[in-house]
Amino acid sequence: MLNRAKAENIQNWIEKINTYNSTPEFGTTRVLFTEPEIAAREYVKDEMRKLGLAVREDSIGNIFGTLVGNNPELAPVWTGSHIDTVLNAGMFDGMAGVVGGMEALRLIKESGVNFDRSIEVIVYTSEEPTRFGLCCLGSRAMAGHLTLEDTKKLEDKDGKTLESVLKELGYNLNKFEDIPVKKGEVFAAVELHVEQNNKLEKKGLPVGIVKTICAPTNFTVEVTGCQSHAGGTSMEDRRDAYAASCEIALILEDLALKCSSEYNTATVGRVEVIPNAVNVIPGKVRFSIDIRDCEFETKVELIEELKKEIRKIEDKRGVQVKLINENNDIPMKCDATILNILRNSCEDKGIPYDVMISGAYHDSMFVGEFTPVAMVFVPSKNGISHSPEEWTDFKDIALGVDVLAKSLLELANKKEL
Amino acid sequence: MLNRAKAENIQNWIEKINTYNSTPEFGTTRVLFTEPEIAAREYVKDEMRKLGLAVREDSIGNIFGTLVGNNPELAPVWTGSHIDTVLNAGMFDGMAGVVGGMEALRLIKESGVNFDRSIEVIVYTSEEPTRFGLCCLGSRAMAGHLTLEDTKKLEDKDGKTLESVLKELGYNLNKFEDIPVKKGEVFAAVELHVEQNNKLEKKGLPVGIVKTICAPTNFTVEVTGCQSHAGGTSMEDRRDAYAASCEIALILEDLALKCSSEYNTATVGRVEVIPNAVNVIPGKVRFSIDIRDCEFETKVELIEELKKEIRKIEDKRGVQVKLINENNDIPMKCDATILNILRNSCEDKGIPYDVMISGAYHDSMFVGEFTPVAMVFVPSKNGISHSPEEWTDFKDIALGVDVLAKSLLELANKKEL
Repeated sequence: MLNRAKAENIQNWIEKINTYNSTPEFGTTRVLFTEPEIAAREYVKDEMRKLGLAVREDSIGNIFGTLVGNNPELAPVWTGSHIDTVLNAGMFDGMAGVVGGMEALRLIKESGVNFDRSIEVIVYTSEEPTRFGLCCLGSRAMAGHLTLEDTKKLEDKDGKTLESVLKELGYNLNKFEDIPVKKGEVFAAVELHVEQNNKLEKKGLPVGIVKTICAPTNFTVEVTGCQSHAGGTSMEDRRDAYAASCEIALILEDLALKCSSEYNTATVGRVEVIPNAVNVIPGKVRFSIDIRDCEFETKVELIEELKKEIRKIEDKRGVQVKLINENNDIPMKCDATILNILRNSCEDKGIPYDVMISGAYHDSMFVGEFTPVAMVFVPSKNGISHSPEEWTDFKDIALGVDVLAKSLLELANKKEL
Repeated sequence: MLNRAKAENIQNWIEKINTYNSTPEFGTTRVLFTEPEIAAREYVKDEMRKLGLAVREDSIGNIFGTLVGNNPELAPVWTGSHIDTVLNAGMFDGMAGVVGGMEALRLIKESGVNFDRSIEVIVYTSEEPTRFGLCCLGSRAMAGHLTLEDTKKLEDKDGKTLESVLKELGYNLNKFEDIPVKKGEVFAAVELHVEQNNKLEKKGLPVGIVKTICAPTNFTVEVTGCQSHAGGTSMEDRRDAYAASCEIALILEDLALKCSSEYNTATVGRVEVIPNAVNVIPGKVRFSIDIRDCEFETKVELIEELKKEIRKIEDKRGVQVKLINENNDIPMKCDATILNILRNSCEDKGIPYDVMISGAYHDSMFVGEFTPVAMVFVPSKNGISHSPEEWTDFKDIALGVDVLAKSLLELANKKEL
């Protein structure tokens, strides 16, 4: 009934979106509500209209493209992802899910098959924390965790608030309270995304079905030692904030490697050394810790263990370590019925797949708070993402779309999960 | 014959020099040929003139204040240090030796004692590498290791060359080739300096006599891993440039702690992480390594050992490490005869002392290439230097000046060493 997805449609859309880019020579950078991001939004909305979708945007810029079902009063089925990026990123993270959703809706429309529930493809606002330091702004607001009050406090590096940016762009902030979605208002949601790991590639599989989305816990760590002369201060007498920071980073890495959880990661990605001079022992170091886990319990255990080890380092090295918790999110278990539908779709289409865990968080983490969710993964070459080297074959995305389209159609005709 | 040095003279000079400061609320910053540094130069020259010294300046800004001896044709005796600082430094490093030299010459003049050789107090240009990334510009040029050609290549962070700055300030670059000092042209040199370690403080001693000046070896290290997604890339599959850098820093620290040398240090002071984002595994890290040792041989051994360990880390972590050697200087052994004179001066004045090693380098490292040198140390409170917390009691500097003055006078009357 459904034709196979066209890799060339997907390629054309992704390559066109990729032209909206602040750093064309250094990968892709498309930061929320900057000129290229706004242009990409307009392009995507135009393309949605060309597909015959009804397009609307809410007060935080979440974009909805609706393929109207036979009973539009029923709770709709959702798909979609994001089009913003981190700095110097690739062209697939987020975009694969947006254009994949568009291609799925095109296939469903083209098939002429009847379906009851409307199917919507959504572009969630700012999944990446690049501009305001907080991820998943659009889906977070949908889940009720980002209020109009909060938008007044979120500032970008130039001190501009999210509220003022939304106002400038003409978003109707009087309707901000309409953004949150109540349970039951959406029937189910399936997000297509690039894997951002190399498990599928290693196994030679084109599709992954995500059973759990790992959730991040983030800390800012501030290590205070004693700034002093690199030559004058003996090895025994120094209180080197950087050496202590290195030890914390390596202990964190070791705890993550030893963790009993099925999937977890720990990363030190941002480091600031003060005063950062060749001949001065660092007196202060600030760095970020990002911990992900598919189980909340093992994550809590790891953090407790890390805290104990940090206390030992403080004693041993005569430094003070301040741990500032930024967020401590709970992993999202995907819906068993949707997982079954995805499995069956793969099998019907003859597409080999694996059931897996998402190490990265996605908008589905927040969407999952108000509706059952699951995700479809397509392979990332060498597992690389958040990098100009990020790559996914367009034909693999097309296979993912085949699974997505069949599953969305089935969900759109389902009475209950 | 010589009166005791006056702590209040020393305090007045140091406090007045400290008013020439770019960061009055964050310690002392006085960078070569910036407004405060130029003002401090003018102040010091004025004060030298008030002491009755003949003042001259060479083509790189080394300042000489001369107390003329009975036989001015004889090779003079030198003392002195520097008045530039690192960023956010203290008010003693360098300045103690300049004003200490001035106070010593004041005492010698005041005593009316006869002496043959002229005695000169010198302000060496830019001992700190703060502006041009290279240390000891003045004394390096004296030792013949910084030519006019070199000044055209040295650039500050704004791309300004040392040559253009010297020209702008009216230094006569046609006389640049007169700067190098030949062996025999200076009889001996003694530099007073703050210890920048806490060995004297721990032993409760006001004076240290330096037998060896450690010399630095500097590397820039560039670690290349693979930039990727912090959550999506599993612990097993990542090639984290920062984790590798932490391991190198801790191995370096360990090698320094285990080194058989009487005194050595190793420091990672400057770190740059790329792209430096919370949710991205660092793909590249650049950092500085600063190794000091009182023995060249043990330093070479440590570096060889470090290189071996780095090769292991490359293999284990799948990263590439590039080691760029910036300099590899040879420690300076101080002159035995001058050391004896300093010892006798301490004993004559009843000042308790210790013979020690300087972990920090000083202009004496280069001056020692063309004349016999030694150094006098005075205690640093808590061993802290290159920091706003740097402190030395003015009365301790005065005791150091007592030793310095007596020794300079004896050297000025010596036929040979």
